[in-house]
Amino acid sequence: MEKNLIQNVRETMPLVHNITNYVTVNDVANILLACGGSPIMADDAGEAAEITSICGGLNINIGTLNARTIESMLLAGKRANELGHVTVLDPVGAGASKLRTDTAIRLLEEVRFSVIRGNVSELKALWSKEGTTKGVDADIADRVTEENLDEMVQFAKLLSGKTGAVIAMTGAIDIVADGEKAYAIRNGNPLMSKITGTGCMLSGVVAAYCVANSNHLLDAAAAAVVAMGLCGEIALKRLKESKLNGTSSYRTYIIDAMSNLTDEILEEGMKIEVRS
Amino acid sequence: MEKNLIQNVRETMPLVHNITNYVTVNDVANILLACGGSPIMADDAGEAAEITSICGGLNINIGTLNARTIESMLLAGKRANELGHVTVLDPVGAGASKLRTDTAIRLLEEVRFSVIRGNVSELKALWSKEGTTKGVDADIADRVTEENLDEMVQFAKLLSGKTGAVIAMTGAIDIVADGEKAYAIRNGNPLMSKITGTGCMLSGVVAAYCVANSNHLLDAAAAAVVAMGLCGEIALKRLKESKLNGTSSYRTYIIDAMSNLTDEILEEGMKIEVRS
Amino acid sequence: MEKNLIQNVRETMPLVHNITNYVTVNDVANILLACGGSPIMADDAGEAAEITSICGGLNINIGTLNARTIESMLLAGKRANELGHVTVLDPVGAGASKLRTDTAIRLLEEVRFSVIRGNVSELKALWSKEGTTKGVDADIADRVTEENLDEMVQFAKLLSGKTGAVIAMTGAIDIVADGEKAYAIRNGNPLMSKITGTGCMLSGVVAAYCVANSNHLLDAAAAAVVAMGLCGEIALKRLKESKLNGTSSYRTYIIDAMSNLTDEILEEGMKIEVRS
Repeated sequence: MEKNLIQNVRETMPLVHNITNYVTVNDVANILLACGGSPIMADDAGEAAEITSICGGLNINIGTLNARTIESMLLAGKRANELGHVTVLDPVGAGASKLRTDTAIRLLEEVRFSVIRGNVSELKALWSKEGTTKGVDADIADRVTEENLDEMVQFAKLLSGKTGAVIAMTGAIDIVADGEKAYAIRNGNPLMSKITGTGCMLSGVVAAYCVANSNHLLDAAAAAVVAMGLCGEIALKRLKESKLNGTSSYRTYIIDAMSNLTDEILEEGMKIEVRS
Repeated sequence: MEKNLIQNVRETMPLVHNITNYVTVNDVANILLACGGSPIMADDAGEAAEITSICGGLNINIGTLNARTIESMLLAGKRANELGHVTVLDPVGAGASKLRTDTAIRLLEEVRFSVIRGNVSELKALWSKEGTTKGVDADIADRVTEENLDEMVQFAKLLSGKTGAVIAMTGAIDIVADGEKAYAIRNGNPLMSKITGTGCMLSGVVAAYCVANSNHLLDAAAAAVVAMGLCGEIALKRLKESKLNGTSSYRTYIIDAMSNLTDEILEEGMKIEVRS
Repeated sequence: MEKNLIQNVRETMPLVHNITNYVTVNDVANILLACGGSPIMADDAGEAAEITSICGGLNINIGTLNARTIESMLLAGKRANELGHVTVLDPVGAGASKLRTDTAIRLLEEVRFSVIRGNVSELKALWSKEGTTKGVDADIADRVTEENLDEMVQFAKLLSGKTGAVIAMTGAIDIVADGEKAYAIRNGNPLMSKITGTGCMLSGVVAAYCVANSNHLLDAAAAAVVAMGLCGEIALKRLKESKLNGTSSYRTYIIDAMSNLTDEILEEGMKIEVRS
């Protein structure tokens, strides 16, 4: 794993354009600031491409997509590609509705993404829609376990090969892969799924890390995944200090931990292995 | 009151589709998770009905309604009715603008709701617009007090009769009623009105409780109202541990309390009586 | 400085209509409640003017503007002017895209604002677009420092003269000026820029303070700027109680501090001088 990935973010304060859902947008903005980046949100077609052009990266999240914002996603994505910017896709709910699946597929067809960050179900929806390996649906269950880990790594690498993007597949075990190499990451804990937005926040952090470390996309994305999981662990330890604490404090503590995170803490806490 | 209402939520993790305002949407998602449910937000007409169909319940909140989302509310509501899903209406600001009053009335005309959750002014706006009892405006003041409690209970029961929905009328004293039976609930405290979203959050919790206990809508809605008020009480006690605490910590503590709530805590803390 | 400005807010609970961005809208609502006001959010053209008419003030923030909400801003702004309401403009990102700059300029042309609250870059964008003093861009750097303070004060007074609005220019040093008189304010600290929304929240507080003290707009706006900065200081002191605290706790502590703020605390903590 590359060194100083976090320091690079804190020193360059990468500006990230987010077209994202209104459920978790505040958390995304705050964790982007906490990790050392700088967020801009803008989703009108009248300015989406222009705002992207002043940024270093673009984070597209389809969590509460609508006809108006889909157009903006496409405009911003194409401009970001022209400018060689880092682009992240978070296909929230792909597979849950035709609109989401179709939009995610369309985005993949019209925009090149540096990283795609999703859970297994969402990534499977992207894959199967491409129509080449129906079997993926049948063969790969929706949870990454020790038993199916090799199979999942293989799927992530294939999806990376198809899309040209680094794949960050998050779940009980996270996999971050390009076509050549894959990391399995065991940071984090199940309580993180009891607050909304940990996935969306992670996608924002992935964007910031990748902009600041654009020559090392795979490592930057993996470091962001580790960082988010590790913040979940640090926050859980703190949470247990009082029995009155619950999930809302947990959210606060996760973002707090991100704002205090350093390369040293990351290195000491990372539970990562190469699987390839 | 039925037993194990909360346990039923935690065991079944009901998926609730929310078409809600962007002011408090994050709090609604987080309290839905905290109470044991699972939230999905989707407000585009292109997917509203489809998303509803994979859920167990629908929570419509008109807090920041617009032409686009009103259409989605109607589409999702009708589909939810076809599927026999639990439906909750939170008519935020009905009475404050013609658009809100008209939209709430239209929703009531075109969609059958399982529960309507609002304050007295909002519920009066629903009622008077129906044109049958102009007197309601004059006779019923906007606060539920010990003095007008019987009258308010009567109004809630009448509104329930008209709409076919369980009425959850919240204020200093809360009333939860169907056409036959009414509960008066004295949990909660005035500080809850100093944070935004306690009403919206409650509507989300009502939806989750009702989905998980769909054979006991009245009791489920009443339990949700008690739960929210009780969390307000637990949070207030915690708030007083430090003079530096204020309203933002209060919001955190309320959601924390909800994530720790059990049937035992509920039963011990409920201040509820049957009024009918 | 006028006395009892905060007490006036807490006693009258001014209702403020906000047409604002969805990134920080929840924080704006909560800090409006914390400072003693009462928020309403409504951005549909079908109700924007009507909602404004039941309020005491209007806070327009272009942070995530779009074609639909721009129309609502204009409708609400004009109605607010007809009714003599306090109007606040927060030109978020003016200068960052043509849409934002043009919209801010158009709002200034069609609506009279009581107060404009922005950073130096945003206010410069408003000014230079007017085309009279290109030099402002060249002469005035984007940070207010002790060195350029007099020049910045002069710029604020000129912009106030042009627009008829009190100018609240916030940065390392804040300047609040009308055409005659200016305050320089040194409350606050750099960590405030590491959470999203301190500017948006301040604009909400400015609106509430100005509605409750409408005969003293300059002092009310200055008091709001002091209040926000002072809450940032109080929150920072609290933040240092634990090394685990970070930026998300900081946000909570700022709003907590606002909910506990009194005229006495304000008077004791204000770092303000007249510069004119």
